[in-house]
Amino acid sequence: MRKVVIIGIGQTPVSEHWDKSLKELAGEAIFSALVDAGRTNVDGLFVGNMLSGSLNRQENLGVLIADWVGLKHAEAVKVESACSSGASALRAGLIAVASGEMDSAVVVGVEKMTDARPGETTAALAAAADADYEAVHGLSFVAINALVMQRYMHEYGWKHTDFALFSITAHANAVNNPNARLPFAISEEDYRKARMVAEPINLLDASPIGDGAAAVVLVPADSLRSRGSSNGRPLVTIAGSASATDTIAIHDRPNPLWLSAAALSARKAYAQAGLLPDDIDFFELHDAFSIMAVLSLEASGFAGCGQAPRLGLEGSISMGGRIPIATMGGLKARGHPVGASGVYQVVEITLQLRGQAGKNQLERARTGMAQSIGGSGATIVTHILRSE
Amino acid sequence: MRKVVIIGIGQTPVSEHWDKSLKELAGEAIFSALVDAGRTNVDGLFVGNMLSGSLNRQENLGVLIADWVGLKHAEAVKVESACSSGASALRAGLIAVASGEMDSAVVVGVEKMTDARPGETTAALAAAADADYEAVHGLSFVAINALVMQRYMHEYGWKHTDFALFSITAHANAVNNPNARLPFAISEEDYRKARMVAEPINLLDASPIGDGAAAVVLVPADSLRSRGSSNGRPLVTIAGSASATDTIAIHDRPNPLWLSAAALSARKAYAQAGLLPDDIDFFELHDAFSIMAVLSLEASGFAGCGQAPRLGLEGSISMGGRIPIATMGGLKARGHPVGASGVYQVVEITLQLRGQAGKNQLERARTGMAQSIGGSGATIVTHILRSE
Repeated sequence: MRKVVIIGIGQTPVSEHWDKSLKELAGEAIFSALVDAGRTNVDGLFVGNMLSGSLNRQENLGVLIADWVGLKHAEAVKVESACSSGASALRAGLIAVASGEMDSAVVVGVEKMTDARPGETTAALAAAADADYEAVHGLSFVAINALVMQRYMHEYGWKHTDFALFSITAHANAVNNPNARLPFAISEEDYRKARMVAEPINLLDASPIGDGAAAVVLVPADSLRSRGSSNGRPLVTIAGSASATDTIAIHDRPNPLWLSAAALSARKAYAQAGLLPDDIDFFELHDAFSIMAVLSLEASGFAGCGQAPRLGLEGSISMGGRIPIATMGGLKARGHPVGASGVYQVVEITLQLRGQAGKNQLERARTGMAQSIGGSGATIVTHILRSE
Repeated sequence: MRKVVIIGIGQTPVSEHWDKSLKELAGEAIFSALVDAGRTNVDGLFVGNMLSGSLNRQENLGVLIADWVGLKHAEAVKVESACSSGASALRAGLIAVASGEMDSAVVVGVEKMTDARPGETTAALAAAADADYEAVHGLSFVAINALVMQRYMHEYGWKHTDFALFSITAHANAVNNPNARLPFAISEEDYRKARMVAEPINLLDASPIGDGAAAVVLVPADSLRSRGSSNGRPLVTIAGSASATDTIAIHDRPNPLWLSAAALSARKAYAQAGLLPDDIDFFELHDAFSIMAVLSLEASGFAGCGQAPRLGLEGSISMGGRIPIATMGGLKARGHPVGASGVYQVVEITLQLRGQAGKNQLERARTGMAQSIGGSGATIVTHILRSE
């Protein structure tokens, strides 16, 4: 397999884009990424999206978007794995380019969620769980996560406020991100007083939905050296990529507080990159709910079982800490257009590795990890990026 | 890239499966394929499906099905390209195995379409076209194809009855297929008198929807020789695989009667296999409508522009003809569970290449071609299979 590098990135703000269709959003991110890459064409297009069938009455997204952006006759396909669809699309594009099946690809994650009838989006998101055994009982996605958080607090003795730092950190980091959905800081008091959604998850434990698209352009590293087209920027390499699954329903797992699929995909990605958790400089994790940030950190080797809240309380997850998370706001404050979030994470890591993260630039950013979760820990995709 | 072989196949009947859920249908095909392959496990699962989000309120299909069939922790993902989703999933699985990213994969195409409110399935299928520029005007999928057929008859001077043999042949071949949705023969009179759907497309020009699943197990060829696990059957190799796109809307094409994406993907697959159209023994084409069978034959090099109806009239497409099509009934009579059809085609080609096609066994079946179409010629995937 060839080493693959990210030579272009693009993103739209995560927002309520009433004036833009799904393909227009995707196009905006793709055009930015192609301009950033200094290219006008690629061999293939991989679209990460979860909800276009239910919310936008649109499928065949691959060709819809390829046609719209002028990728004439290019191979194009949509990849879906619920909220990790963007990361799964990246993996599909990566395998296609790494294997030599194609010499360049653009991967776009896109979602348009806000232009829906009341309740429609919540119902559509429940499709990430087992429709016949979970959703049918009226269990919404936030309710599933609330049960997990409740259990975690019970097992390990943490209070609700012990989770505050995950949300506070994400919001603090979003302030300087022009593409963030909620670019404002919150205090611990805000967190404590936030409206309850599904006990113990309150509004500030949960990430906001949104419309948005993010894109990356992939080429094999060897094509660059011969053409010298890295534009003088540090070369961003995909050093590790892996995906694993667990049972789709949490009630089928021996331990509902252990994300096996995160542990497996992270372990595989570490091995590919020849790294250990200690070598990761920052972690764009899937903080759709604060409990998910906690479980990701534990399964990925950054904290022992039941210990991750300590990382927040000790300052380890903030910009100057041992393992900064959500450096541009994360799902919590940049926003979570579900099928796009996995690509947003990788775009943001690339900004950090290139030294283009503006006021949020980390001092040490050589190796960043992204982890994206589809369903309640059912599908988990881990990518490790490195600057060279 | 490693050479990849199909070592297991499975399928359910195409029918109205009121008693089975989407995952149960998929599971049935997967279990059959694994048993046929003599395996209990694979590294990855690729699901081809178009409509689960809109008709079944279910996404995250990869892990849903992996969990159901006991592929514990396996990488799993859904691939979508409208009616060619199954073929696109096959390509994704093929690239993953050929590249060495994984050492085995199962690809399943599955669709559950009949358990829907009246009109719901037609509306859901319109998602294969451009929602903003075609579907919004009330243009259904059959209406788009009717406009194309009308145009074809006008340009080339064929009468409606000149298309009869495509439907008659498919139905004749379905009689001996226990999995066919419409396993009965039709006469030319039946064809002429069939109820009009969207002029000039009548009920016997159109394929029936249905519920169904088909699956194949892929491994690299070199893994077989060392383990000697081809079970004494001819080895079925994927000799060519390519996908291309066109504009999503027919009105944007210079010639609405030329399937550029078919021509491009077929040309690429021929080149990979080192073959010409003359070398193809039979062709499982995408006869969702008889006009699509005609256009596929022309774009794939089996007839000149405007000439394919002659292949029907001359008997070339029947079982003893030069280029038999729809040997187990095709989309027309085996049935068209949209996201599954691309995998059904490949399962049926494998049966022919193994000499397991029963009463429909072709005398000469060394090389078979499958072509699957997503949208009105928007995404087209071509595979060439060979027995060795």
